[in-house]
Amino acid sequence: MGDVGEWGLLEKLLPRLSRGLSKRVIVGPGDDAALVRLGGDVLAITTDMLVEGVHFRLAWGGGQDLGHKTLAVNLSDLAAMGDVEPVAGVLSAGLPAATPVNYVSDFYRGFSRLAQRHGFELVGGDTVRSDRMTFSLTVLGRVRGRVFKRSGARAGDALMVTGTLGDAGAGLALLEKPSFKVPGHGGKRGLSSQNSRAIRFLVNRLLRPTPRLDWARRLAKTGAVTACLDASDGFWKSVTLLSDSSRVGAEVWTDRLPVSPALRRWAGDRAEGMALAGGEDYELVFTARRESARRIESMGFARVVGSIVPSARGVKAYQNGRPREVPSVFEHFNG
Amino acid sequence: MGDVGEWGLLEKLLPRLSRGLSKRVIVGPGDDAALVRLGGDVLAITTDMLVEGVHFRLAWGGGQDLGHKTLAVNLSDLAAMGDVEPVAGVLSAGLPAATPVNYVSDFYRGFSRLAQRHGFELVGGDTVRSDRMTFSLTVLGRVRGRVFKRSGARAGDALMVTGTLGDAGAGLALLEKPSFKVPGHGGKRGLSSQNSRAIRFLVNRLLRPTPRLDWARRLAKTGAVTACLDASDGFWKSVTLLSDSSRVGAEVWTDRLPVSPALRRWAGDRAEGMALAGGEDYELVFTARRESARRIESMGFARVVGSIVPSARGVKAYQNGRPREVPSVFEHFNG
Repeated sequence: MGDVGEWGLLEKLLPRLSRGLSKRVIVGPGDDAALVRLGGDVLAITTDMLVEGVHFRLAWGGGQDLGHKTLAVNLSDLAAMGDVEPVAGVLSAGLPAATPVNYVSDFYRGFSRLAQRHGFELVGGDTVRSDRMTFSLTVLGRVRGRVFKRSGARAGDALMVTGTLGDAGAGLALLEKPSFKVPGHGGKRGLSSQNSRAIRFLVNRLLRPTPRLDWARRLAKTGAVTACLDASDGFWKSVTLLSDSSRVGAEVWTDRLPVSPALRRWAGDRAEGMALAGGEDYELVFTARRESARRIESMGFARVVGSIVPSARGVKAYQNGRPREVPSVFEHFNG
Repeated sequence: MGDVGEWGLLEKLLPRLSRGLSKRVIVGPGDDAALVRLGGDVLAITTDMLVEGVHFRLAWGGGQDLGHKTLAVNLSDLAAMGDVEPVAGVLSAGLPAATPVNYVSDFYRGFSRLAQRHGFELVGGDTVRSDRMTFSLTVLGRVRGRVFKRSGARAGDALMVTGTLGDAGAGLALLEKPSFKVPGHGGKRGLSSQNSRAIRFLVNRLLRPTPRLDWARRLAKTGAVTACLDASDGFWKSVTLLSDSSRVGAEVWTDRLPVSPALRRWAGDRAEGMALAGGEDYELVFTARRESARRIESMGFARVVGSIVPSARGVKAYQNGRPREVPSVFEHFNG
């Protein structure tokens, strides 16, 4: 027990449970959110649990960031489903008896600010004692327009991604490894103001991700998106998940991966590797019909980074046309 | 930090957060479930988090019981809201790496059996690592008929309760204190078969509560119920919560509290005290218009156990017409 194999089994139990669902369930477990028909509407439902020492550390800073992030990662799951309007949700908090009240009220403050921005309302929850701080949020959204599933990609589609990749992974490395070194830099001492701005940017991308709800809505309106998920487990992992669900292969052109100036400054020529394998990027990884890719790129927030190919060709990465290795995939740290 | 006062503050933070909700939110935090208008329907949403060592122990037995209970306590919250049909939900599981796969698959088996009985579908979730086994379930229901709030009781209403009280509290005492003694009994050694049946009944009431959805529906159809909640924190605590929400007082007639033959056998003349203060009774505590109380009693599953009085008279217990003390209220144990 306890090894990766057993854990893999545990992770697979829940999705297996939900075979044979009724027609009312349009999308069940295994996508970013479930879609359920209810009355005249289709609801999107998603949930995430964040555990201290596994998904966050108290040493990373104030409760406001964590409140923001707890909501943001769930809203990101709604965005991955397409044109979905966040509506309401419930939050359970498992708290050690010695939890500072200020930390929790800061948590709610950070949560509320993001909620207000998206018209989301927290309507209930449960507060219980626990050894480790644990937050479990469930978010409901109303499907407003087109939806995306992971399973719709077809050979010939363009593989695309929003925003920039790898920033959050770099932010995590900075927070977890104070001695983290990047080629050409001497570490964190004697930082120029440009470097400290870059660090703040990268750490901020980890601690306060932006859910891409508006971009998802604009993408849905193009009618050209064939599959989508968010890059919460890292871009490469997302591509493999999308490929599995859609039963296709994929070519990833790593030289095309969008890299922020901050990541370039800190990671130099390792930036593409971090963009490929880093985790906690709450960007949208999606496929679009090839003839619409240029039009989507012209919207200014997404880029073609590869191509969907037949299943038999597998999922492969190329740098300037040559096959390349993929660095080991991001995993949540274990506290 | 860490004392009861601080914990009390923590518990109050979440409900405070949800002031100024929109009109779409019919009932917000502080009731058994939230009610939210969505499309043409009204949805009931509730969530509960169960933590190993706080809400359950692995030593209590198999995963099937825990899976059953995790769903049952949430369905009980729906029942407390009136005529609500369970629809779908999502489950997050925080699991230690060494969790036996069998325990979790048993959990899902117990969960699924109860789900099928009520037409409930698990449509998603999240499995993460955690030190302590933690389950967080969110359940959605569709409001089908009349709903109950905690706040509708009026002076002159009858105070009523379904089923029997105190069984689960006795079951907890039996599991937690092997030396638990009851007047007139010598403990667990040399049990008669009648005694062992009684023990099984009491422990079963703790581990496998029955959500009272059918009774709630029948109560809703009478049109006579003015307020309701479930007795998850114990009957007495429920009466004080109902009184606070409705701004009324209450007389509880402890000699009228419904006590099972098993509890009577085990607790003797302490049974009424356990019925009053024991916890984890997933029965419905409700108020009804006085003129309908007899008719409701004739349905066979509920009994008048007191009367709602003006707020100034407070909440008081009487035994055979004389004021009586209330034993200290049940709290979840701390592992």
